[in-house]
Amino acid sequence: MFKKSAILLLLYFSPFCLLGQNAKDQLMPIPQQITWGSQRFNIDQSFHVVLSDAPDSRAHKAVVRFLRRLNDRTHLMTRIDPVLKSGDVKGVSLDISYQRVGNLLPGEDESYELNVTGDRVTLSATTDIGVLYGLETFLQLVSSDNQGYFIPGVSIKDRPRFPWRGLLIDVCRHWSPIEVIKRNIDGMCMVKMNVLHLHLTEDQGFRIESKKLPKLHQMGSNGNFYTQDQMRGIILYASERGIRVVPEFDMPGHASSWMPGYPELASGPGPHQIERKFGVFDPTIDPTKKSTYKLLDCFLGEMAHLFPDPYMHIGGDENNGKQWDKNPRIQEFMRKHGIKDNHALQNHFNKKVMAILKKHGKKTIGWDEILQPGLPSDAVIQSWRGKEGLKDAATKGHQVILSNGFYIDLSQPTFQHYANDPLPASLGLTPDQQRMVLGGEATMWAELVTPETIDSRIWPRTAAIAERLWSDASVNDVLDMYQRLESISIRLEEVGLTHIRNRDMMLRRLAPGRDIEPLGKLVEVVEPLKEYKRHAQGIPYSTDMPFSRLPDIAVPDAPVARKFRLLCEQLVMKRDLSVKPEIKAMLQSWIENHEKLKVASSGIPALANWIKMSEELYKISSLGLECLDFMDRRQVITDEWTKQGATSIQNARRPFDEAELMVVDAINMLFNHALPK
Amino acid sequence: MFKKSAILLLLYFSPFCLLGQNAKDQLMPIPQQITWGSQRFNIDQSFHVVLSDAPDSRAHKAVVRFLRRLNDRTHLMTRIDPVLKSGDVKGVSLDISYQRVGNLLPGEDESYELNVTGDRVTLSATTDIGVLYGLETFLQLVSSDNQGYFIPGVSIKDRPRFPWRGLLIDVCRHWSPIEVIKRNIDGMCMVKMNVLHLHLTEDQGFRIESKKLPKLHQMGSNGNFYTQDQMRGIILYASERGIRVVPEFDMPGHASSWMPGYPELASGPGPHQIERKFGVFDPTIDPTKKSTYKLLDCFLGEMAHLFPDPYMHIGGDENNGKQWDKNPRIQEFMRKHGIKDNHALQNHFNKKVMAILKKHGKKTIGWDEILQPGLPSDAVIQSWRGKEGLKDAATKGHQVILSNGFYIDLSQPTFQHYANDPLPASLGLTPDQQRMVLGGEATMWAELVTPETIDSRIWPRTAAIAERLWSDASVNDVLDMYQRLESISIRLEEVGLTHIRNRDMMLRRLAPGRDIEPLGKLVEVVEPLKEYKRHAQGIPYSTDMPFSRLPDIAVPDAPVARKFRLLCEQLVMKRDLSVKPEIKAMLQSWIENHEKLKVASSGIPALANWIKMSEELYKISSLGLECLDFMDRRQVITDEWTKQGATSIQNARRPFDEAELMVVDAINMLFNHALPK
Repeated sequence: MFKKSAILLLLYFSPFCLLGQNAKDQLMPIPQQITWGSQRFNIDQSFHVVLSDAPDSRAHKAVVRFLRRLNDRTHLMTRIDPVLKSGDVKGVSLDISYQRVGNLLPGEDESYELNVTGDRVTLSATTDIGVLYGLETFLQLVSSDNQGYFIPGVSIKDRPRFPWRGLLIDVCRHWSPIEVIKRNIDGMCMVKMNVLHLHLTEDQGFRIESKKLPKLHQMGSNGNFYTQDQMRGIILYASERGIRVVPEFDMPGHASSWMPGYPELASGPGPHQIERKFGVFDPTIDPTKKSTYKLLDCFLGEMAHLFPDPYMHIGGDENNGKQWDKNPRIQEFMRKHGIKDNHALQNHFNKKVMAILKKHGKKTIGWDEILQPGLPSDAVIQSWRGKEGLKDAATKGHQVILSNGFYIDLSQPTFQHYANDPLPASLGLTPDQQRMVLGGEATMWAELVTPETIDSRIWPRTAAIAERLWSDASVNDVLDMYQRLESISIRLEEVGLTHIRNRDMMLRRLAPGRDIEPLGKLVEVVEPLKEYKRHAQGIPYSTDMPFSRLPDIAVPDAPVARKFRLLCEQLVMKRDLSVKPEIKAMLQSWIENHEKLKVASSGIPALANWIKMSEELYKISSLGLECLDFMDRRQVITDEWTKQGATSIQNARRPFDEAELMVVDAINMLFNHALPK
Repeated sequence: MFKKSAILLLLYFSPFCLLGQNAKDQLMPIPQQITWGSQRFNIDQSFHVVLSDAPDSRAHKAVVRFLRRLNDRTHLMTRIDPVLKSGDVKGVSLDISYQRVGNLLPGEDESYELNVTGDRVTLSATTDIGVLYGLETFLQLVSSDNQGYFIPGVSIKDRPRFPWRGLLIDVCRHWSPIEVIKRNIDGMCMVKMNVLHLHLTEDQGFRIESKKLPKLHQMGSNGNFYTQDQMRGIILYASERGIRVVPEFDMPGHASSWMPGYPELASGPGPHQIERKFGVFDPTIDPTKKSTYKLLDCFLGEMAHLFPDPYMHIGGDENNGKQWDKNPRIQEFMRKHGIKDNHALQNHFNKKVMAILKKHGKKTIGWDEILQPGLPSDAVIQSWRGKEGLKDAATKGHQVILSNGFYIDLSQPTFQHYANDPLPASLGLTPDQQRMVLGGEATMWAELVTPETIDSRIWPRTAAIAERLWSDASVNDVLDMYQRLESISIRLEEVGLTHIRNRDMMLRRLAPGRDIEPLGKLVEVVEPLKEYKRHAQGIPYSTDMPFSRLPDIAVPDAPVARKFRLLCEQLVMKRDLSVKPEIKAMLQSWIENHEKLKVASSGIPALANWIKMSEELYKISSLGLECLDFMDRRQVITDEWTKQGATSIQNARRPFDEAELMVVDAINMLFNHALPK
């Protein structure tokens, strides 16, 4: 009892609570240091930004975007051009200063300080990159009440925990047009991420124009590639938002799309074609020919010129070695040079490619698999197979980036990614070894996404990964994270992301002219199958398939399902009876939804499985209500009821259309709780 | 009584009704000839397209897009590549044939024939452009019932009434990035429009790269322009959808953005800058200097090369002549050459520019104002000021395009545009003169739109304009049009248009974390002020303003408001008492919405006027309910009630935030009906 009162007291007297209660719930990532003040800074039409900077500077442009977003939210119609000197314009202002233009390099100073008093806000930073981040924090703090818009008094000192906070987008397996990339860059900037890793070549497509070897994109892309002009546009767009673009050219495996244009690269005989299906394929670059390195030198040299970032990614994953095994010339080469196996042969290849990159002024990054004996220590390892790989690399003196645990294509819940600290104490790294861990990257592999759905696989979960990489390790309250995630998710739509708005559009397409509400209500408690399970349900996924089905409309970590699970835990584990009415109401709403969904779906074959799934939901919801009833009345439970209940739960666990109901465990919890102990 | 039964019988025995009742409601524009058959063509996974054509042909690419859209709707997972010969693949097929590749020229054969029997569908056309349209008609016919997906048996012979069916997009006043243009091109193709008129230069921006005169776009665009590569991409994208791109370079007025780079073009002294506000501005090209024509020759020559279309638009509208009046050198030139007024001077200018265009192989289009004595008869007139201009031009032997009545930026209801026949009998044109009327263009002027809202100003209303320009003049049943418009509106989202989905996103931005449903419910009966009224409410609109407010979220011709008006007309004018419960329910729902809206909007200053508007809606809805009540009970009506009612209605007519309630007239109708006669 005492504890609760203490918390209430604390809330009551906290100036933060009085003035900006919602401001804290809107911050993501959480800054390193926050001290809430007692005043509030009111934002009205006279609000303006003071910044002494040229109109084409990164900071000036960012301020204009900032003010447009502020005005779009508040309709205050403030002036959108910064003024040069405090006092030039009447009214309250945000004064911005920074010392120098930041370099887009890992380890650059990205810190900023934001001080809010009743009169004025100051944002100061070493570099203009810090200014970008401070502006985002400001926007996250904007609150309102009946008196108007304001931000609470606060003093923030902020800087990232890790210098490498990335998002990988695979633009090969499914193509992502420029606008998809741009809106995701804006989303990244909102949550202070700083590396866009573009996976540009794959079995399914070669997505960058080569002027020197034009058959690469011409014959390897089905017309879906970025021209060099377009890529320069993307790089500029990213750099204006403080984001580096790191290109990946995956080799020697995952390389089918190189071969139609340049079959001489192949280790196998062909015929060569772009893949439409997904998996690990045989076509592999021949590491034994001089002509291979000549071609790679030419291509990578061209790319080194196009991409200003000092890092370049050579992939190196999942080479199955089959073409090497079958090629007598390659076998002969291995014998002659004493190369004992395919790993060693790939190592031979990697070292030669690294030398080429070095010549062109680039540092090499590769996936786990490139870490072989003798790999030069300046190669950066991107760890995807497990934390051991990360430890191994750091121990051996390689810089390393964590992606294992950040595979957002696998539709796992946010809290799992959030818990994935790149530097857990359990890893036992020395401080020096810890410094080798640059950060991490969320990976959006694109087997199962299209421009219509990709945003809803990336966001909002990636915002939590961004927080893991920016905020202090001690920031790990999962419930708090989820609350803030809901807020940032809505804000992410401001910059054009479609992760929320596309859902209803996809429902309308399936059920034109029908009431889509019952369909949406089902989708709220459904998630796509996780990990690689979607590929094991009998659908031969390829780039030709429709991605407009239930598992594409449903989103990972469905908020409503999560809320229901929390309530049930609250009831069963914490014996908190106050949540019962809400649980009841949710169950009741799913029961009532079933008839509506049947009407909305009738005569629409594409929705046949939705009706089946809704029926399972109907049944377990009825079961759930009965369980609550039994808890109330302590009624005698028959064996028959128990048996039927168990069957209902078992049936409801079956996937439909590669999607699953996410309230089954929670109802099972109610069920077990209702059973006699 | 007899009539009703007859209709029912007719419905019952119509094979169309039995098999594809919804198919007819999905067609827009209505084909020229339709004969419904008695069979149905079932579409299942074995469905495929037979087309003997190269993979990079326009028809082949269109088929792949067609099959992707079909699969996205139906999830049938049919093969998406056409097969070359009927019988090569098992199953039912759509056989496509055409005689030749179509030319993108006005008057090209755009006809097609679609024949659907139980076994097979054949689509044949003279040109591949006809094939594109036939595919869209097929997609509009796709229906479903419990047996599966199908299209009803039908024989369609179709061709357009007018050869010029255009959409003008003003990309100057507000910038439209490439993706906006592309998704609108797709929308145009869906409703068989064939001209994208890009208004590329204006006071507010010069939106096309000139390599020969780079200061035009560099100093005239704030960085928002299409590179020539990008424009070639747009032209290709359009041509693959049967759409011509006609560029407009507005001169001699509306030309402020030319001047910062090339002040020597100006008739006034400067300083020269890009405009941020809207209206008619003074900067005007100097028509008296030789250097003007040299520069225009250079620029237009470059553009003539970039844009393959034989037509080029020189604007010519709204030259206020002020700079000409004030410039002594220009006045002297006029005296010397016997040019009596500014109209004559502009005519002098136009003729010289036309000669330049002719030299570069282009035909000239200009707005009404260019029609002056002595204008060469091969100039095409785009009529925006009234039908008289159209008649005048056609009578004088000019080809003419109608835009008057198609100004979709004015937020007028669809039926007004729909009724705007380019060739009404009242015009009294001879058959030869009628042939001079090429068609029409909807005009999306961009003072008040951004990439977020532009789609919802264009669509779905433009689909009805497309029908006016394609279908027979006798197709003019407004109720039927509105029914089909709802259907096509949903389909337009398939190609990426955002006219429906962006609404809720904009609501979430204003009220993050709140229940947006009551906000949406208010928006359903609100429309932006029409014609030019938004500019007269005190907001000094400019490109710096937020366009995220009530009149930007509300859409023209709000469907719910229209439905309510229809019901009230049904009750009052046709004395159909059966609609009373529905009217009551709607009024009741608005009354109940008010409290919810207040909760959802509390503490959000941007929504303050929404609460006021909702209160007006609450009051007149209460009044409406009372009126219904009085009709029932024939109660004595007091003078006081009458007076208060009239006041409520008057108050509800006031605009808030440049938006208006669209149910006031209907409730006024109920009110007047309730009053003692």
